[in-house]
Order: sequence, then structure tokens, then C-alpha cells
Amino acid sequence: MGEVRKVGIVGGGVIGAAWAARFLLNGIDVAVFDLDPEVERKTLEVVANARRAQTRLHGAALPAEGRLSFAASVAEAVSDADFIQESLPEREDLKQRVLAEVDAAMPAHAVIGSSTSGLLPTKLQSTMTRPDRLVVGHPFNPVYLLPLVEVCGGDQTSQQTIDIASALYTRVGMKVLHVRHEIDGFIADRLLEAVWREALWLINDGIATAAEIDDAIRFGAGLRWSFMGTFLTYRLAGGEAGMRHFLHQFGPSMEWPWTKLVGPKLTDELIDTVAAQSDEQAGNVGLREYEALRDSCLVDIMHALERNDFASGAVAKAYRASLVGKAAVELGSLGDDGRVLTGHTPVMPDWIDYNEHLTEYCYLKLFGDATDVVLARIGAGMDYVASGLSFYTVETHIRHLGQARLGEKVEVRTRVLGSDGKRLHLFHEMTNLTTGGLIATAEHMLLHVDAKAEKSCPAPAAIAEAMEGLVAAQRSLAPPEGSGRSIKMPG
Amino acid sequence: MGEVRKVGIVGGGVIGAAWAARFLLNGIDVAVFDLDPEVERKTLEVVANARRAQTRLHGAALPAEGRLSFAASVAEAVSDADFIQESLPEREDLKQRVLAEVDAAMPAHAVIGSSTSGLLPTKLQSTMTRPDRLVVGHPFNPVYLLPLVEVCGGDQTSQQTIDIASALYTRVGMKVLHVRHEIDGFIADRLLEAVWREALWLINDGIATAAEIDDAIRFGAGLRWSFMGTFLTYRLAGGEAGMRHFLHQFGPSMEWPWTKLVGPKLTDELIDTVAAQSDEQAGNVGLREYEALRDSCLVDIMHALERNDFASGAVAKAYRASLVGKAAVELGSLGDDGRVLTGHTPVMPDWIDYNEHLTEYCYLKLFGDATDVVLARIGAGMDYVASGLSFYTVETHIRHLGQARLGEKVEVRTRVLGSDGKRLHLFHEMTNLTTGGLIATAEHMLLHVDAKAEKSCPAPAAIAEAMEGLVAAQRSLAPPEGSGRSIKMPG
Repeated sequence: MGEVRKVGIVGGGVIGAAWAARFLLNGIDVAVFDLDPEVERKTLEVVANARRAQTRLHGAALPAEGRLSFAASVAEAVSDADFIQESLPEREDLKQRVLAEVDAAMPAHAVIGSSTSGLLPTKLQSTMTRPDRLVVGHPFNPVYLLPLVEVCGGDQTSQQTIDIASALYTRVGMKVLHVRHEIDGFIADRLLEAVWREALWLINDGIATAAEIDDAIRFGAGLRWSFMGTFLTYRLAGGEAGMRHFLHQFGPSMEWPWTKLVGPKLTDELIDTVAAQSDEQAGNVGLREYEALRDSCLVDIMHALERNDFASGAVAKAYRASLVGKAAVELGSLGDDGRVLTGHTPVMPDWIDYNEHLTEYCYLKLFGDATDVVLARIGAGMDYVASGLSFYTVETHIRHLGQARLGEKVEVRTRVLGSDGKRLHLFHEMTNLTTGGLIATAEHMLLHVDAKAEKSCPAPAAIAEAMEGLVAAQRSLAPPEGSGRSIKMPG
Repeated sequence: MGEVRKVGIVGGGVIGAAWAARFLLNGIDVAVFDLDPEVERKTLEVVANARRAQTRLHGAALPAEGRLSFAASVAEAVSDADFIQESLPEREDLKQRVLAEVDAAMPAHAVIGSSTSGLLPTKLQSTMTRPDRLVVGHPFNPVYLLPLVEVCGGDQTSQQTIDIASALYTRVGMKVLHVRHEIDGFIADRLLEAVWREALWLINDGIATAAEIDDAIRFGAGLRWSFMGTFLTYRLAGGEAGMRHFLHQFGPSMEWPWTKLVGPKLTDELIDTVAAQSDEQAGNVGLREYEALRDSCLVDIMHALERNDFASGAVAKAYRASLVGKAAVELGSLGDDGRVLTGHTPVMPDWIDYNEHLTEYCYLKLFGDATDVVLARIGAGMDYVASGLSFYTVETHIRHLGQARLGEKVEVRTRVLGSDGKRLHLFHEMTNLTTGGLIATAEHMLLHVDAKAEKSCPAPAAIAEAMEGLVAAQRSLAPPEGSGRSIKMPG
């Protein structure tokens, strides 16, 4: 089969709507079916949240959105879909009935992913005519931001189905965890359920409140869990002796009665207690406000991890790279006007300020990179620096004329205004390709130096000639507006 | 009692050394006792890690460091301490014996915090002459970065002791969670242990590997847990109907056998399996490298959360505010010559190039921060920006006159050359305090703007007066060498 172009969403609650958003924002058409008469309003709200968050996360790198439609029946939602994502309530009989219906109505090449958080695919597929076409694709809330999706096949699931689902989830920016053995709750929910049950016991037994239990997580281990799991964390806790030492040291505590197996009985009294404590914890902050705060924190954390090229940050980075069209811009090439193309990039998440504008010092980062492109072109790149000779920037003059926001594409083109065999006089112009205007210029004077002796010296003939060649190629251009300026108060 | 000036650290392993670092970096003197002959080397390594991380987290706000010494005996470490932090191995008999020793040697006003992760304070204090002076202060690794500390008193612990410990932990930037009922594992470790036991079962039963289990956490729920705990997360999952709806919806699954009570038996075979999987997961990346990565991720995540003023970010923000006035240098203060002190920091690891020199664009980062200090001083700080008014840099002129290497201290002092109520003309001078020379200057023209309208406008009278005040204070100084320059080829 070819690339997935349309997804049918069966079940449009919190999970289904967020799936719809993730697919739409990746340029895939989506048809949603749900019995809820308010499904359209609710889905559009979730898509709006997702758009805001994903745009902050990935900026202009995102493709044009897919088309969203609402179907009047299961059959209508899936009849021309390449992929179906089922997100019905967690009732085995309900899912079995509707999955058989989907199976009967979907195209021959289509594949179904089920969002079930704990039901076994072998049971879910048992009522289907083409059971090989069903696989579990279990996501986490908010589905449009959290990367994890557990992919788990049943006894009759084909490898092709697993591959199709995994490829689609990866394409929309997710991290596929292949659950190789069918088990209730798969992997993640078994871990979450362990925490949840222990937490309910702590409330049931009057040891701690909902807010205290949340604090016990978010101010401690939760910070680590956002990028390292339990094993890597404990490996580090084991010090130089590592995991084996840790196991021997803490093995005995495994026998201590620190957790309980099944959760406490959910009596009306316990439900009242938990709900009341949850209300108190939430204070006067409403659901939507918390969701916006949650999404904002998640985006900022993923950007923070991207700066470290680790965990979800590495996933986001690879995903964004996969989105960039292979448009061949060749840095160092000469444009028709003789200027050198020295920069071409979207504004990255770690270059922005709190207003999501390209921040002041990152202009100089981009201009510095542009200078390196010129130096590489004249034969004074990294190898040259390693040989002990180099150009140092001795003077810089930057003018700010506009702005660039997260994800907008900026381009730098460079004039070589002069050279005397020892000095190199550059003038960079930065354009915001997304909005169309010149947003900054940087004028630099560079000096050729012997880095070991820390003294300036004339450049070798080949480099001096290359510099002169660039000056000559641009001689017909009028001097750039804004060069040779000094800073002073007007009048 | 007055403020804690000296802490005795009894037990200088991973936890004890990190406690030492946290106290030292808050200007508190520390004496460490441990039988390990290598305690000095190991402690200094941890303190260096902590200094790097905390300096990245809080910058120049940190106070002058306390003095670190190593004691030859428990008595020597605690005899003149105001507070003692015990971090011995988790053996009740050992802790009881040494705590009695500490009790006998410490001053009458001193208080002991025990780092135990699960032993009960009532038992630990049972051998002490002054049992009212012991409280549990249970931290999380790395102690110099994670905010959480569980404070739990035993039957004989006095309220005053709890208050003293809580105040000290808060003062050094931590989030105190008061555990009101003594229970094995307190609150946090019961939750962590639940995850850990279930994770070991998953390996024991061949369901998943260490790396897969870690991925199941860090790409999903772990991201949420870094700022919201389980209850707030599930409240949001309950949608508009909230926690009560969530409990009713998922209550039945509480009875399903998704987790097991006690951990699996740690047979040699299971230990081998876990250790081997952990080795494979870690690959060729060594312990120190992982620790540095962990700390870098934690600092960036806390900055990310600070941008949202939430969870650990709110704690870091409040902590930094509490440091005002304690900082080793006071940014924004006027020097004898009328210049404003606007920067004072060592060169950080992420600011250097491959030669370990302060890299070009980071000069502008430091100069930009210096501009922010001037703006805060004239009443145009973050609150002002939030109100919709701001100063934008429109022109920058940098001269490079020298270098700074990793770890060298640089200082920025700023001249205010002029203002006309709308424009602000600054001249920053950066000195390398370690080598002694002027290494760069930056001249800036700033324009006062209405950020919403994206138009320049006159500054309010109070700010205009503050600008004029600075210009007047510096009027007697000769114009700085290098101001008003433009870039051009000589001759």
C-alpha cells in the first residue's frame, strides 16, 4: 500500500479527538465518527489546542493541515480511509461489535489501530473477518503532544499490519514502543497502575492527600522520569558500581511491605474523599486553564530536552528533520547578484525569547555561522583553523530592522566589501523569508591571525586571491545601505 | 536559635556529598565525616558538578560559597555545627549507634536531619539522649538539583525541630513535603517502589527489557509527572466531569490483576538479566557522562517550568528571589566611578567553542543580559515588559579586544552615554577578572516601544528620569575609548 492519506477516527472523545488533531497537523485527512451530538464542537476545541501547542513545538516546519470531516456512521468514516484509529470506551463487547463493523466497511488495504489501554488484541480481533488487520496503538494523553504509543499485535495480527501502523505513528512524530508480549495493561499502564493503586491506598489510609502525593512525584522522581526511566536512574544511583551494586544494596527492601497489590475498594466514601481533595488541589483553576498550562509545560520541556538532544527532545528533533523538504539550498553558493548564500534555516526553539521572537544574541549566532560559510568558501574552514591559522572577528555592527518568530524561515546573504590580504570586511543581510522583509544586518571586520603566536599576519596567497575574487564578483553592486555606520544620538 | 551557619555531614557518599554541595553553594560552612579514605576527592567532584549545575540554574544570584572541611571523627564534624545531616547506609542499627554519638557531641541548639529513605524516625531516635532533636529529611538524587525533601518527625520529635529543619531546607531552595504520618517508605518511595517492583516483574517474566520499560515511562507519563502528579493528570483525563467521573469510569480496573504486591525474588539469574540489560541500555556512555547529561536536562527542564511559573519552576523562582541581597555581587549597583555593575559570572561550559574560548555570540548573550540589568534598574524589567512596554535594541557595535576561557570570571560594567526619553545609549565594558584585561566592549542604541502596537513611543516620566539620573551620575567620566566607531578598512 502507498502512504496513508486519510484516517477514519471511530470514537471521538478526549483520545479520539486528539488523534484526529495529530493526524490533521501532519497533513493527513481525517473523518470522525462519534454518537455524541457535540462531537464537532469538542473536536474543534481539541484541534485548536493541538495546533497551538504543535506550532509552538515545531513552528513553520509543520506541513499544510489535512481536511477534517464528520461522518454520520461508522461505515462513512472508514469506507475510504487508509487507516482507522478506534478510541471507543474500554468495554470489550462494545469494541468487538464496532471493530467487526469497521472491518466490514473499510477498504481492503486498510489497517485498524485500537487505542485500548489494556484490553488484549487477540480478544478484540476475534470477531473480525480480517483479524490480521487489527493492532493495538495505545497513546497517552494529550495524544497530540506525548510521543509514546504502544504497538501490540494479537495472535492473528500480521507483521505487515504492525509495520504499517508503526510507520504511520513514527511519521506523525511519535515514539513507537513495540510490546512484544500480550499482557493486560501492556507495559506503561501496568507501571502507572502500580503508582495509582499505591496512591489511592495512601489516601484511603489517611496517610497523605492528593496534593501531597502529587508533590511527592513532581518535585522529585517525576523530574527524572521525564527523560530517564527507572532503570537508568537507578543505574546512576548505583554510582561507579552501577546496576548490579544497586540491586544488591536495595534487594532486601523488595521484601518490605511498601506497596499493596490490588487497589483499595472504591467505596462511596473513598470516592468522596479523593474527589474533594482533588477539588481542593485544583483550587479555582478550571479544566481548560490547566490543559493550557499542561501543554505549555510539555512544549517547553520538550524544547529543553531538544537542547540536550535526548529522550523526547531527540524524537522531536528527528521528527522535525523528517519534515524539512529536501529543498537543495547550497550554502556558500553565489547568487545572481554576487552575494554569497550563507544561511537558510527555520527559527529553532532554543533561539527564541519568552515572546517567541528570535532572541538578540541568536542573531549573532546566525551571523557568526554565516561568517564561517564565507571562510569555508575562501579555503579557511575548520581544517585551516586546525593548522593554526585563522580569522578572528575584531569588530561587529548589528542593526535590527525587524523580527522573526519560532519556525519562520530566515536566510542570510553576504557581501564581501573589502580585503587587504590581512583584513576581511563582511556585510551580512538577514531576510525573513516567511514574512518577506530584511530584518537585520551585520557588518564585521575580521583579522587573519596566527593563533599560536596570537599575532595578526598576512593570509597565504591562495586565500588572499579567493577574498579578492569575491570582492571583484560584487564590485558592480552599490554599497549596502547601513554599512559604515556608527552609533549616536540623533540631532 | 539563629540562622544555621555550619552544617555537619555524617556519611559522605553520593547523598552526603550532594547535601554538602547544596549547603556550600548557599553560603553555609560544611564539615564532612566519612570513613572512606577517598571522601575528599569524591566530595570535591560532586561539589564541582553541583556548582556547574547550580550556576547554570541560578547564575550570579548565588551567594558566596561556604567553607568546606573534612573531619577526622563524627565528634569533630558536629561539635560546632548548627545542623547535622546524617546520610549513612540504610541500616537501622548503624544509624542508631552513630546518631547517639552525634547527639552526645553536638551543641545544645543543634538539630539532626536524617536522609533515611524508609526507616522510621521513632526507631532512629530511640537511642538518643535528646530524641526531640531528630527529624527525617529525606532527599532525592541528585540532591543538589531535585527540590523534594520529605520531612517526617518521630513520636518524640519536637515541633521546633521540624520547623528548624523545614526552614533550612527551604532556605537552600528545596520543596518541603511534610509527611504527617510515619510510614515505611514515607510517601515518595512507596510510589517509586510500586513502579520498581512492577518493572522488575516485567523483566522477570520476560515481558519487556529495562530499556523498553524506561521508554514506556520517559516518552509518556514521565513527561507529565515532571510537573503534575497522578491526581492532577487524571483529573484532566476525566474531562469536564473531573476526578469523580474518572474514578467511576476506571474504578472497575482496580480489581484487575495489573500489578503485583511484593517484588520478584532477586535471584542471581534475575540480577544477571537486569544488570546485562542495563549495560546494553547504557551503551558506551559512562557514568560521569550520564550524570552530566542528567544534570543538564534537569537544569533546562527547571528553566522550562520557570517560564510557566509552575511546579519546580515556581520553587526555583521563589528561591532565587529569596537570594536577593545575599548574592556575592549585587548586579545593578553603581560603582565608585558611576558605572553600573551589570555582569559577573564564570564562563560556562555551554558558552565555549572547541578551543574553550568564550564563543563569539555568547559575548552578545552576556551583553544582552547586562542590558537587562540596566533596564531593571531604571524600572523597565520583566514586569514592565509584561505590561506591554519595552526597550528594543536597534543597533549594536561590538569590539573584541581579548579572550576568556572556560571557568574564568568575567565582569561587565556599563556606561549610560545618553538618553532622550525615547532612546537609551549604552556602552558595556567586559573585563576578564581572572586575567585582568578589558576583553570586549559593546555599544547599543535602544528604543522605547509599545510592543503591541509595534511602534516606538516616549518612556513614562519615571523611567525617563531614571535614565537621566544614570547619565548625570556618569557625566564626569571621559567618553569611553571606542565609542562612536564605525567599521572600515584602514588607510
